[in-house]
Amino acid sequence: MIKTILLKHRPEGKPTVSDFEFTTEDKDTELTLQDGEVLLEAVYVSVDPYLRGRMSDAKSYVPPFELNQPIQSGVVAKVLDSKNDSFKKGDFVSGMLDWKTQQVSNAEGLTKVDPSKAPLSAYLGILGMTGLTAFTGLTEIGKPKEGETIVVSGAAGAVGSVVGQIAKIYGLHVIGIAGTDEKVDLLQSKFGFDAGINYNTTEDMAAAIAAAAPNGVDIYFDNVGGPISDAVLVNINQFARIIICGAISVYNNTEAPKSLSVQPFLVKNSALMQGFIVSNYAAKFPEAISQLATWLAEDKLTYSETIVKGFDNIPNAFIDLFEGKNKGKMIVEI
Amino acid sequence: MIKTILLKHRPEGKPTVSDFEFTTEDKDTELTLQDGEVLLEAVYVSVDPYLRGRMSDAKSYVPPFELNQPIQSGVVAKVLDSKNDSFKKGDFVSGMLDWKTQQVSNAEGLTKVDPSKAPLSAYLGILGMTGLTAFTGLTEIGKPKEGETIVVSGAAGAVGSVVGQIAKIYGLHVIGIAGTDEKVDLLQSKFGFDAGINYNTTEDMAAAIAAAAPNGVDIYFDNVGGPISDAVLVNINQFARIIICGAISVYNNTEAPKSLSVQPFLVKNSALMQGFIVSNYAAKFPEAISQLATWLAEDKLTYSETIVKGFDNIPNAFIDLFEGKNKGKMIVEI
Repeated sequence: MIKTILLKHRPEGKPTVSDFEFTTEDKDTELTLQDGEVLLEAVYVSVDPYLRGRMSDAKSYVPPFELNQPIQSGVVAKVLDSKNDSFKKGDFVSGMLDWKTQQVSNAEGLTKVDPSKAPLSAYLGILGMTGLTAFTGLTEIGKPKEGETIVVSGAAGAVGSVVGQIAKIYGLHVIGIAGTDEKVDLLQSKFGFDAGINYNTTEDMAAAIAAAAPNGVDIYFDNVGGPISDAVLVNINQFARIIICGAISVYNNTEAPKSLSVQPFLVKNSALMQGFIVSNYAAKFPEAISQLATWLAEDKLTYSETIVKGFDNIPNAFIDLFEGKNKGKMIVEI
Repeated sequence: MIKTILLKHRPEGKPTVSDFEFTTEDKDTELTLQDGEVLLEAVYVSVDPYLRGRMSDAKSYVPPFELNQPIQSGVVAKVLDSKNDSFKKGDFVSGMLDWKTQQVSNAEGLTKVDPSKAPLSAYLGILGMTGLTAFTGLTEIGKPKEGETIVVSGAAGAVGSVVGQIAKIYGLHVIGIAGTDEKVDLLQSKFGFDAGINYNTTEDMAAAIAAAAPNGVDIYFDNVGGPISDAVLVNINQFARIIICGAISVYNNTEAPKSLSVQPFLVKNSALMQGFIVSNYAAKFPEAISQLATWLAEDKLTYSETIVKGFDNIPNAFIDLFEGKNKGKMIVEI
């Protein structure tokens, strides 16, 4: 039996399980491959905050998901059958695929991945979009220089924890912001951040950041937006670079949120704030993957995953992202 | 008698005349020049919104003015006496000088200006900081491309009106925002903008901008901040560039202002927002001045000035900037 998850309703505010619909087809449904096609079985499915944007029909950088059609995200799959010379039965691939237990693909955008070099789930994380996002966002917009100070929000998340580690490799003073004491501990004990701040228990975030960053903030890698970002903004230095990688704190808002006006801070500090979408930097991916794999092999990078089991749990795993229930990359094992 | 204007109080909110103090010295006060010094008589004094920032003691890109000390701004002055080989009696110079009818300068940062090439006041405007700000902000951050759409706020102001004209030279669709019908008329009749919007009489600014920019907004040259900028933000295109040149609408706020959260707009459009301080681009000035002078000679650029007469009126002219009483560059003729 093949299961599929469709977008039933566009979420209003926080997504709920009723926004999704499961359908099943009998396994003997004809799956006859055309030339060039492969038959795939999902092994790991990535759930990511940015998918929330595609569930709305607002104008954005990628078209919205269509109602009553399968949702797509990063997936690692096993090749069950192939009429494509680049892939053979038993290979593993990664790519943007439907939330579906089995599917036929024309192989466009698929990349073969090697389970002997890294665990398969890593290809959805540190050696996939997560690692690429952290590396290219930090280097291309952040332009880190030894001795500078960086603040990372969503620091215990998939991207944030990698950003902090890369920043340490570059010799920066690294401060992470996260939402539980356990996560803040992890930042320092596991990921080597210099300091961590729990935004849920800190009354004056601006003062806490100032204390952790005595030389001010040169780079801010922003995954969250909202009041946390306001508190960073008041601490930026001349020529600060702010990478807007995500704004998870406001994705579920039904009205356009208000924050501190950034313009006066940017102008008085000649600071830069830039929206970052990893797909715009595809030309840098080969170099980035190679660098990340090297650091991983040298044990200079580590990563966290939260692996949820079962295809049926994909919607809940996605919803849990907005509760901060994941540590690092959230992945569903099929 | 030599008159000087000192900063008496740091303004709270909008500056008032009581924030300034006039002092006088007898003319026979010793003005003995040392080697390298020049004795200058102010001819034109520039008043600019950014001076408001220096009147506060907040951390900024230039140190704040000191209390009970002269205020400084761009000044064109006549050399009354000189012990400096680069300047002789009767020359005209421009530079950052005290609000003082006569003063001794060590000549650092002074530039000789030629009254036969352009009116002396132009060296405080289109051939001075105003023109340099418009040109380098637009080209270095805005990176204009033929056929794109630009919105300019504070469009009838000194910088804004030049930005729009340069954008037209580069082949852009140019929309200006200003605060009176008279200014909006000027944008089109005098400065060649394609469209103008009066923010004081337009109920739905976001809709008005959308109507004037059917292809969306690629560049926003922002002089004002606040709600006007919010209305532009919702209309930006993929890869939009936003030059934060000023935020006059909030300079007088006593509390940090709130606006629409920019982060979601920047991330979904891969857009850039950068604070712009002209002095960071000094290396580009010779090329910029040469280009501006060429365009001026070819009648491709025109400019407006509001010239107020009398040294005693400097504070009022400065205060009037925040009421939008100037058209183009506000200058005081001594």
